[in-house]
Amino acid sequence: MSYLVVLAPIFGAAGLYFAYMLYSTIVKQSDGNEKMQEIAEMIHDGAMVFLKREYMILSVFVAIVSLLLLSFISGYTALAFLFGAICSMLAGFIGMKGATRANVRTSEAAKEHGEDAALQTAFSGGAIMGMSVASLGLIGISAFYIAYVMMGAGAVTNLAGFAMGASSIALFARIGGGIYTKSADVGSDLVGKIEAGIPEDDPRNPGVIADNVGDCVGDTAGLGADIFESYVGSVIATITIGAAMGAMSVQYMTLPIIVIMIGLIASVLGINSMKKMKGFDPAAVLRYTAFISAGVMLAASLVVILIMGIGIKVWFALALGCFAGIAIGLITEYYTGMFRPVRKLAESTKTGAATLIISGFALALESVAGPVLVIAIATYFANDFAGLYGIGLAAVGMLSTVGITMSVDAYGPIADNAGGISEMAGLGPETRKITDGLDAIGNTTAAIGKGFAIGSAAMTALALFAAYTQAVGLESINLVDAKVVIGLFIGGALTFLIASFTMTSVGKAAMQMVEEIRRQFREIPGLMEGTGKPDSATCVDIATTASLKEMILPGVVAVIAPVITGLLLGPEGLGGMLAGATVTGVMLALLMANGGGAWDNAKKYIEAGNLGGKGSDAHKAAIIGDTVGDPFKDTSGPAMNILIKLMSIISLVIAPLLV
Amino acid sequence: MSYLVVLAPIFGAAGLYFAYMLYSTIVKQSDGNEKMQEIAEMIHDGAMVFLKREYMILSVFVAIVSLLLLSFISGYTALAFLFGAICSMLAGFIGMKGATRANVRTSEAAKEHGEDAALQTAFSGGAIMGMSVASLGLIGISAFYIAYVMMGAGAVTNLAGFAMGASSIALFARIGGGIYTKSADVGSDLVGKIEAGIPEDDPRNPGVIADNVGDCVGDTAGLGADIFESYVGSVIATITIGAAMGAMSVQYMTLPIIVIMIGLIASVLGINSMKKMKGFDPAAVLRYTAFISAGVMLAASLVVILIMGIGIKVWFALALGCFAGIAIGLITEYYTGMFRPVRKLAESTKTGAATLIISGFALALESVAGPVLVIAIATYFANDFAGLYGIGLAAVGMLSTVGITMSVDAYGPIADNAGGISEMAGLGPETRKITDGLDAIGNTTAAIGKGFAIGSAAMTALALFAAYTQAVGLESINLVDAKVVIGLFIGGALTFLIASFTMTSVGKAAMQMVEEIRRQFREIPGLMEGTGKPDSATCVDIATTASLKEMILPGVVAVIAPVITGLLLGPEGLGGMLAGATVTGVMLALLMANGGGAWDNAKKYIEAGNLGGKGSDAHKAAIIGDTVGDPFKDTSGPAMNILIKLMSIISLVIAPLLV
Repeated sequence: MSYLVVLAPIFGAAGLYFAYMLYSTIVKQSDGNEKMQEIAEMIHDGAMVFLKREYMILSVFVAIVSLLLLSFISGYTALAFLFGAICSMLAGFIGMKGATRANVRTSEAAKEHGEDAALQTAFSGGAIMGMSVASLGLIGISAFYIAYVMMGAGAVTNLAGFAMGASSIALFARIGGGIYTKSADVGSDLVGKIEAGIPEDDPRNPGVIADNVGDCVGDTAGLGADIFESYVGSVIATITIGAAMGAMSVQYMTLPIIVIMIGLIASVLGINSMKKMKGFDPAAVLRYTAFISAGVMLAASLVVILIMGIGIKVWFALALGCFAGIAIGLITEYYTGMFRPVRKLAESTKTGAATLIISGFALALESVAGPVLVIAIATYFANDFAGLYGIGLAAVGMLSTVGITMSVDAYGPIADNAGGISEMAGLGPETRKITDGLDAIGNTTAAIGKGFAIGSAAMTALALFAAYTQAVGLESINLVDAKVVIGLFIGGALTFLIASFTMTSVGKAAMQMVEEIRRQFREIPGLMEGTGKPDSATCVDIATTASLKEMILPGVVAVIAPVITGLLLGPEGLGGMLAGATVTGVMLALLMANGGGAWDNAKKYIEAGNLGGKGSDAHKAAIIGDTVGDPFKDTSGPAMNILIKLMSIISLVIAPLLV
Repeated sequence: MSYLVVLAPIFGAAGLYFAYMLYSTIVKQSDGNEKMQEIAEMIHDGAMVFLKREYMILSVFVAIVSLLLLSFISGYTALAFLFGAICSMLAGFIGMKGATRANVRTSEAAKEHGEDAALQTAFSGGAIMGMSVASLGLIGISAFYIAYVMMGAGAVTNLAGFAMGASSIALFARIGGGIYTKSADVGSDLVGKIEAGIPEDDPRNPGVIADNVGDCVGDTAGLGADIFESYVGSVIATITIGAAMGAMSVQYMTLPIIVIMIGLIASVLGINSMKKMKGFDPAAVLRYTAFISAGVMLAASLVVILIMGIGIKVWFALALGCFAGIAIGLITEYYTGMFRPVRKLAESTKTGAATLIISGFALALESVAGPVLVIAIATYFANDFAGLYGIGLAAVGMLSTVGITMSVDAYGPIADNAGGISEMAGLGPETRKITDGLDAIGNTTAAIGKGFAIGSAAMTALALFAAYTQAVGLESINLVDAKVVIGLFIGGALTFLIASFTMTSVGKAAMQMVEEIRRQFREIPGLMEGTGKPDSATCVDIATTASLKEMILPGVVAVIAPVITGLLLGPEGLGGMLAGATVTGVMLALLMANGGGAWDNAKKYIEAGNLGGKGSDAHKAAIIGDTVGDPFKDTSGPAMNILIKLMSIISLVIAPLLV
């Protein structure tokens, strides 16, 4: 059964072909009138320029790190690193192409054919990203596995290079994209909504194009790179752990690859099932597709595991991870959706912005407990079922149907963009109502997706941590050892520091954006009256330049920190640092994602007509809360996911230097 | 030399007598005119009623826990617990008496004799608390040491009961006091300053008496209990570690007691040196007194350590702790004082409250790194010099001159109260200027004191953690063990949960306060015009009832959590939990203390006339920031200090149940 792995690259290629089919179906659809085409082109161009400039900077980084790996670790690791980085960039590029083609066609579909067609278009656009991530990950992992392990050209430890490549790109993409999207968002809101008093996505606002580009580069490309990294990292960590499992090690090493092959097929089935559910409630459709894929994956995996003679307990660990992912998503939805916590939070606007911030922060602090408990329980039982391997496989279980979960996640920003295009092109209230509805669902899926991304990052980090301890040959990392304690503290401080850097960067970039938008309102004649034309390109350029500049410091700190700690404090101290960073990183990520989500929806709750509705004092307070939450949920919070994975994977790669 | 310990209770008694002398000197001073006396009486009564009701609730708790300890651990531990609790309550009571007598006399001294006299009075008031904490701690520890260890009536492990008693009271006092002070502060600010537009401490505001009582119960009694706990906890942890040190164990056990005996004398010298520095800058005077005490303590300890034949390396550890405490204080001052970070933060009000909150949060996240690095370095070298014992002794070094550091800390709220009384009694701008100046210094000493409290809590928690691992006989707490990892996550989630509970409680209590003050402004005729009399007593009662009710849940969770974790996950899992709670607790404490302090001073910076001064848009935004910061710095943040110490000490006490 293990030889099935040789088919994996073919499965991956088929997956990519499926993504291509989705893409060509979408571009055949009408992209609306000239005005819409013009707006869509500006968003598309802005996103592509950002990607191009980002990738140029990252090429330098990738080249330097490849050389370092070649010199200090091994050429095999360097090669895997290079391809990991390329696959991640490629997935981002394809996903972004799909998203920026699907957004305007979703608007047009909403206008011409109604909700079902619009949902279908937006979801297909997301599925392009979903399938690229799943397929490129599968191709990369399986190709290096075949070459290095099956054909013996390298060693199993060299595989970690691939995950490190993915991880490095992810960190920069997430941070850069996060700074871009929020500086554009905060900047255009502060001047447009608060100072000039014009609605969101108003075409007179010079920042709206940048804001829409930001949705693509942050929420699509950034999230895609994040999930791609978890996916690749969890599989490679599990292979590494499996390699040390004696007589059955081949079965244990190939199982995670076979599981993601199954996951890929299950995702295609899920995506196709969508068309069968016409007329259903859109939110339910999105949920069902994910459930169908998960069910197929679990059933088929059970059969495979039994045939391979690995034992049913390992399947329990896999299933546990799958359910834990769902549970964390649901808890996230409870705290950030229109339920009791958000409604209570909205009430606190009655006494102003200060109490809203305090209550929101309290909500965010509380929301950490549930997901952490789920992670703790999943870890405990996964370990009980199958040791460290179980922990790794639980992470794989969470991520194996990434094709569908990523599709649902990537759907959100497309729907958001479609709403923006409808508003800017003046498509009228009927169309706007459909896109608003799809966007609202997108907010929920985004919140769930964030919870899922954090949960999977935590499980992946734990799996990588386990793989690291094996790689450095440590039976024990002793918390009674002062070096480990110090490592723990330093790891904790690092996550806080990176969170601070990214948050400060948003502030700086947003300030530049504010000044530019203010300047345009002041200097361009007739802009407010709609007769002048805003200079959107300058805003796009400012966001691009600022975010790329700001992503470098936190990115470099994150890459260097484990190396320095490992060299100074030794492998145990580095182990302590990873544990400290993982525990504080997961907490901060949950805190920030849920706090930001809750403030966002508290504002939406008021805008829906509660507590005085739009324009009331409560609404003004809610806008402040939402603005505070923006960098929380879309920049600093998501950066935590990658940070903890990246530091673990770097530790795994440099393990040979430490022993 | 070790037999010097039998003199310790006598030293302690002499220290208490010194505190009594300070008290009688103060009460002999004039307490001003009738109006001032009336206000002071209301604050005094409010504070005493709060303490009485708090202690009644705590008596029930202490009785139950004593019985549980008697049944499951040992009668000796139960007895020590009982006395630890009583000493903590007594120190709080004496300190509060002193503070509420000194506040009005500080106003009067400022009015009649100028700055020097006012500083002297406020500082002497603080020194009453400082000397009570130092003396009662010394008496309690040494008495139980003589009885249990030297006379062999119990065992050295039973000493932990004393620290647990102190810790339990501290948790409730800190949380209850923190909720009280901030609900009163936020409540009266929201209605008074923002809605009614009257100044702070305006006598027409029904909430100002409660606000002033809050300064006493939160900043004086709460902080006193916190520091008392660190003091006692660090010494007992070090004794416990010293007990396992073989042939020299008697010397190692007695050294920390002798060091705090020296610290007590050094503190008296420091307090008395104050009088010699008439005409100096008040801020410098406060700093010098602390330096003099630290210098005396270090010099005398060096002699003692050499005579005892313990070796100079142990002294290095002691000195390291002392310097680390100062370093953390200075870093705190940098981030929260009128330096670059706060000025930059104030600038961010230009774009409104949202950017102020984001920038303040970024500042707070960043401010964690420095102190954590200091703690890490101190831990590393203390361990290098003298193993786990060195870590314990570093904590003792930080806390040995508690008599003077606590005096400086307790000075702040007295000066704050004096300002309030001067305003309410209408003592005129001259007096107000002096008390404002003293209050501003108090804000800085409070910020430094908070940093110091966190640093010492972290070191104490580490020392207790080390003592715990010895008590459960664990050579290693293995981070590769899934139970330890789960413990780590649960510990992390717990600190977030307690922070959430306390923050929510402030919100709830403040809301009740807001409604009551609004009701009074609405229903009492002539209140705004100054002809009606506010019903301050009802506000005091609301704050008292609400804070005492709200302190119970977080307190009980903190006490029960380690017991349940220990029983479910075993001693290793509990060790993981302590590590997780310590690392996240220290970070959250620093984050919240520094964030709150920075927002507070950003507001003060604007009120000093910068960026448009009082009444400007920048000022309005700054008030929102300050209000958000209030529960951060005075309720949830400080609760973290105690939480981590309390959970460690409970673990140490229940160790016999787990092995």
